[in-house]
Parts: sequence; C-alpha cells; structure tokens
Amino acid sequence: MSIQNTALLTDQYELTMVAAALRQPVAHRQCTFEVFARRLPDGRRYGVVAGTGRLLDELEHFRFGDDELAVVSRFLDPDTVDWLREYRFGGEIDGYREGELYFPGSPILTVRAGFAEGVLLETLVLSILNHDSAIASAAARMVSAAGVRPIIEMGSRRTHERAAVASARAAYLAGVAATSNLEAARTYGVPSAGTAAHAFTLGFTGPDGPDEKAAFAAQIEALGVGTTLLVDTYDITQGVANAIEVAGPELGAVRIDSGDLGVLARKVREQLDDLGAPDTKIVVSGDLDEYAIASLRAEPVDTYGVGTSLVTGSGAPTAGMVYKLVEVDGVPVAKRASHKESRGGAKSAARAARATGTIVEEIVYRAAEPVPTVDGLRVRPLQIPLVRDGTPVADLPTLEDGRRHLADALVSLPWEGLGLSHGDPAVPTRYQLS
Amino acid sequence: MSIQNTALLTDQYELTMVAAALRQPVAHRQCTFEVFARRLPDGRRYGVVAGTGRLLDELEHFRFGDDELAVVSRFLDPDTVDWLREYRFGGEIDGYREGELYFPGSPILTVRAGFAEGVLLETLVLSILNHDSAIASAAARMVSAAGVRPIIEMGSRRTHERAAVASARAAYLAGVAATSNLEAARTYGVPSAGTAAHAFTLGFTGPDGPDEKAAFAAQIEALGVGTTLLVDTYDITQGVANAIEVAGPELGAVRIDSGDLGVLARKVREQLDDLGAPDTKIVVSGDLDEYAIASLRAEPVDTYGVGTSLVTGSGAPTAGMVYKLVEVDGVPVAKRASHKESRGGAKSAARAARATGTIVEEIVYRAAEPVPTVDGLRVRPLQIPLVRDGTPVADLPTLEDGRRHLADALVSLPWEGLGLSHGDPAVPTRYQLS
Repeated sequence: MSIQNTALLTDQYELTMVAAALRQPVAHRQCTFEVFARRLPDGRRYGVVAGTGRLLDELEHFRFGDDELAVVSRFLDPDTVDWLREYRFGGEIDGYREGELYFPGSPILTVRAGFAEGVLLETLVLSILNHDSAIASAAARMVSAAGVRPIIEMGSRRTHERAAVASARAAYLAGVAATSNLEAARTYGVPSAGTAAHAFTLGFTGPDGPDEKAAFAAQIEALGVGTTLLVDTYDITQGVANAIEVAGPELGAVRIDSGDLGVLARKVREQLDDLGAPDTKIVVSGDLDEYAIASLRAEPVDTYGVGTSLVTGSGAPTAGMVYKLVEVDGVPVAKRASHKESRGGAKSAARAARATGTIVEEIVYRAAEPVPTVDGLRVRPLQIPLVRDGTPVADLPTLEDGRRHLADALVSLPWEGLGLSHGDPAVPTRYQLS
Repeated sequence: MSIQNTALLTDQYELTMVAAALRQPVAHRQCTFEVFARRLPDGRRYGVVAGTGRLLDELEHFRFGDDELAVVSRFLDPDTVDWLREYRFGGEIDGYREGELYFPGSPILTVRAGFAEGVLLETLVLSILNHDSAIASAAARMVSAAGVRPIIEMGSRRTHERAAVASARAAYLAGVAATSNLEAARTYGVPSAGTAAHAFTLGFTGPDGPDEKAAFAAQIEALGVGTTLLVDTYDITQGVANAIEVAGPELGAVRIDSGDLGVLARKVREQLDDLGAPDTKIVVSGDLDEYAIASLRAEPVDTYGVGTSLVTGSGAPTAGMVYKLVEVDGVPVAKRASHKESRGGAKSAARAARATGTIVEEIVYRAAEPVPTVDGLRVRPLQIPLVRDGTPVADLPTLEDGRRHLADALVSLPWEGLGLSHGDPAVPTRYQLS
C-alpha cells in the first residue's frame, strides 16, 4: 500500500496556531516537544512502544500540495499558506525504539524544531503512537499468556479497515505469529494465515440438506491436508469425525470457534487421538482475550485465534499519550493548571537493571545531563536518534528488530510485571531533574 | 483523499474459501449474506447504522490489480488468481440507510450474489460497518446528552490516523456539529473547527517568564476576536482576565480543558459577565463522555469538545456485527453449534410505530413476504436498495440525509430509550419467520 498524503490527518488548531505564531518571533524559537503517557491503562504493568516506524514513513508524506492548500486556505491567511507550501520537517527526533517497554512519564518521543515546525506534527504523531502502542501493549499480554503457543491475529473485521493493517503490524511486533490481514502481509511482510468460515461449510447445503463432508473435501482439494478445518458448524463431534474421515490423520488442524473452548478442546483432543490423528492440531477462537488465553493454559490447545480484544486494545483502545511543549529556547515550560501535571525541560530516560537483567527502575533525567549511574546496576539509555535534519537516520531498527527487542525486554521484567492481574507499573519511574 | 485499492483489506481465509469453492458448484450458487448484531454493547438502548456510504465507495476499489495478485499468488492456485483478476462485484445489496437506528437482529445489510462473489466482501463490509456504527452509536448518546449545545469532535489523536477521518464522519452523522479533523473536512465536507493548545501559550515563554497576554494577542491578531482562547494554562481566573483585557468583550469564547469543569464553568461565567462579556461563550473539554456531558447540563457551558470517548466508542469500540450466510439457492442455512444463535433464510425488517411516531417494535420477517401489518400501528420498511448489478443505485441518501434521518429517528424512541442508563434495547425485536 503506498502512503497517501498525510498533511490533513491533523487537527485544524495545529494550523491556526501556526498562523498565529508565524507573525511572532515564537514561530522560529527552538522548541522541544515530548510524547509521554501520564499513566498506563487501568492496572497495566507496562506499555509497549509501537508505531514509530509508521510515523517516520508518514512524516515523509506530510506535505502540503495544491489539494491540501486549497482546504486550509478556507481558514488561513495567504502568508501561512505560502509557508505551508514550503513546509518540510527539518528538525530532529529521538525516541524509544519500537518494541521498547514504557512506563508512566517515559519520554517516548522527543521532537526538536522551531515552534511552528514542531507543533504541526502533534496530531499525526499521537494518532499513530496512541493507536499502535495500545494494540501492541494488549497483544504483548496475550502473547505472554499464550506462552509457547502461537497466536494468529484475526481481528480485521472488528476495527477500521486501515487500522486493521496497523493493528496486524503492532500485534506482530508484540510477538503474535501471524495475521489474517493481507494488506499487512503486503505492506509489512507480516506472515499471513487463515482457516475457513462457517459460511463455507453452510454453502455446501443442497436440496438434500447440509453436507459438511463435501465442504471439507473441497477445502482439502484446494489447500491440501495441512489445512485447518472448522468443525463446529453443526455438531462438533460429528465435525471432527467427518474431518478425519475426509482428510485422514494427516489433517493439519481443526478449529473450534464457539462453546466452552476448554472442555471442547479436551474432548476433541481425545477424539483426534482415538481416531489416530495425534498430530492434528487444535486451533481455538471466539472472543479470546489475555484472560481467556491464560485460562486455557492447561488445555490441549495448539494455537489461539484472537480478534476483537486484540484490535481494540483489550479494554484500552488508546494509549493516552500526549505531546507537550517542554522547552523554548532553553527555558523549561510547563502547564501549571490543576490535574494535568507535567514537568518542564527536555528530558531523556534510562533503565536500570540488576546484573541478572531484571529491571529495577526507569530514570527520567535532563537531556543535557550524562546518562545517570546507579551503584550496582547497569543503566541503559532508552532514546535513539530517529530523524536528523528532517530525514530518518540510516539503519533504523526494523519491525523484526523491534519484535526481538520486545521479546528480550519482557524477560527483563520483574516476575510480577508479567502477571495479568491489575497493579502498579512493573517498575517505578524516578525523576532525576534537579 | 482518493481511495486506494481496497482488495487486500481482507482476511486471507476469504480468498482461500473462494479458491476451494471455485472448483465446486457452490461457487456460483445464489447466496444471501446478512449483516446483523447479535446484541447491543453493554446496556445500550439502540445502535446507529453508519459506514454504508464509505462501504459503497470502497467497494468500487475492491479490484485485484497486478500488485494485489502478486500477493495472493503466494497461496492461491492460478485459476483462482485468474478469477480474481476479473472480479467485479456484480450482485445486489440492500440495507438500512445511514443514520437508521438498529437493534439486536436487525438485518442491517443484505448481500445477494454467487457464493464466491459474496463471501469475498465479508471482511471489508464488517470492518467499515463495525467501526463507523460503533462511533456513531456512542456519538448519538453524547449528542442527546448535550441537548441543544453543540459538540466539537476532537479525538483524532486518540485513534488510528485514518480511523480518525471515519470517526469524524460518523460523529457528524450522529449530530456532532464539527470536527477538528481536516481530512474529514476535505473528504466528507464535515464542518471543521478548532481552538488552541497549551503549547501555543507556553511557546510565548521568554527569558522573563510566561507571557499569556502575548499569546492571546497573537491569536487574536491572526484569527480575530471571534476566536476561542484557552485560559487554563496557568491560572484560570487570571487567564480569563487576560483574555478579556486583550480581546475585549467581543471575544468569541474561552476554553477550559482541565479541573472540575462544572465549578470552573460557573466561576468563569460569572467572571465573564462581571467583565462585561456576557456573549463570550464557554467551551469545555477534557475526558468528556456522555455521562460527563449530562452532568454539566445545569452548568453555563456553551460547547463541548469531545475526544477519546467518542473515537473509541465510549467503551464499545466495535459494534460486533457479523456477516452470515443465511440462504443458498433458496434454502435457508444456519450454524447449529452452541452459543452463537442465528436464524436461516433471507430476511427483511420493518419498524412499527404509534400514530404519535413513537416506535414500538422491530419486526424481522422473511424477505419474500410482504411488509407485515400490525393493527393500529404504522409499519415502515427499513431496507433500501443500495447496489444493483454491482453498481450503487442512483440518488442514495447523502451524509446530510442520514444526519437528518437520525435526528428524526431519535425522536421516535420511547422516552426511556434515550436515557443513558444501562438497560434493554429501546424496543424489542420480533421475528415473524414462520
């Protein structure tokens, strides 16, 4: 999928602020904007950064061509329109890499640019990071709950058709094995997978009634015996018997999409073994979330198909990150009004870990200071350069890099941080800003 | 925004089902697929159909070109690839119009086509309708709660960047007055609006400290005194005083984005009146949802800015609609396995209302039967033709038509149906299928 122009994927006020600023010295003052989350969603122990790669792609398409200028000319003065015509982001961006864990206050992305140049990116930056991080954060918990068993992401139908593509990417970053979404396969190289729907079996209904065996035979003829047959359209026990009768014991897998999945998995496993098909796997799906996945740990399930809960962030569909101006020409700035605390000044962050690798704290420190040291702990700086002079730096981590990075990062969590139960962030955030 | 190719915005299994079907007579059997929701989200009284217009636009771009065929060739046989190369949906679609209320079981969309032709659309249809209807359904409750006061949708930063555009459209359909999203203004003609961010005021911090008045003066110079000034960056009372000092009593509005919005609105209203600015309006924003909006009914608020809760469906980010094969060559079909009840056979629906206009029940009946009559009630059929021979019919209702339709439809609900409290659907669904 080629990326379209992204300049209007923004809030009108970003542009009117630019218009108001351009008449003043503020427009060109050197500013630092920071992206962070004030808190994690409802009892979550960690968040997962995702979307940075997509953001850098879309940033290159954030240009005001004639069509975009015609729209903004409705409410902007000609000088501002001329400025936008020439707009290319020319500043610097640092940030957490994709697949990095984050905690409340982590400075996930830092944009350094003139005021007008930087304020303009707020909406696009937040849309992408808030969406993708919400999905990756939920997916990582599901992957943890599933242990060594693979998850197939199949939620495209439960979210906006383009959000579905980004969701598949974020889920893959988080360790999900494959997606049903073909655009994600094309655009991001995510492995794709699929089974069959009840409609397929129902379609073989003729004047004489249903014919599940004909449906199974047709699927095997087209896709081979390694395929996954959906066995719960009519009676599951009969469905399994039909599947093995038609496919033989080499059948790849059966899928169960409804009912008490634990009970059914056990029954079906026993039946498959009795039928001499011990290698035929069991795929379960149907309203699974991280808790349902965990509850199936002791059951003979081989693969999970997860849809709705994954693409909707399992109760937290947005990461709640904000984009805040924190420094103007070297002077720290911060909103002072109640309830929305923020800390002025450009910041960076590092994570301290024991020699075992287990992390202990997130340290947020002044960007101008060196990486802090902590006695007895290893301290790893978290931000990497992403954009210089408006251009993405060379050799940025790939999606696969991020996927490996997250897998390692999850191992570094204190054990209670991987639990599904609600609680505090897995490690505290310590501000070293004096 | 021009629409890109949509053929890969789909699940792989739709295509493998086509491949398996194409070798069998089933591929060309005349089928009816229906879209419906088994239930409304968690205690909601009604749903709002949205997305149909977008679906018809995207349907025209559901074509397999060389790029798309290269992707699906990885797992499909050459005959199927050839069939996809020629694929144009050539069937019929009927459905509820956008802005129509729906209830559990309402046949929101009906697709009639050969099996392969129809099954291929499942993912795209559901992605669009599930997303857009979830947003419109949440937005309609907020609009009801706001009464005559306008709502500005400003949630783009809290959802996927393209979902944001669809959300703005769905919110407008539901009666929201304007959006901050400029792509929605361009693509769908939704009125756009905006205020300013704290960053703007903070940007005017100089070596001598903050200068809120300079920020306000700059905004007024660029946008005129009709603009909305954000007054809660530092101290709200001082902010309001600064705003009127700089703008005079002709100032359009002030915005409050944090704190106890009810208390603050009262204080600010009093202050504005005392300053001789009785016509300066008050815009409130900050984590508003339908309940918070309702709680501000008695407060002197003029406009609500709503973000996160709107674009995430206020707890129900997907409408949970399904796309089910219900009839094959005139034979009703239905899944029989537990927990996911469905009713076979092509269906249509009508809504019965008293002479006063108040609706009484949703009647789902066999599509082949005439519209049912109910003694003493007026019965209105709900499906309209949307596509014939693969082409959208002429003079389909516009987005504005849908917006008016919904406004009328909400008035037709029994009074308890407009309440925000959890409960049963506002009217029961009666199946007349014998």
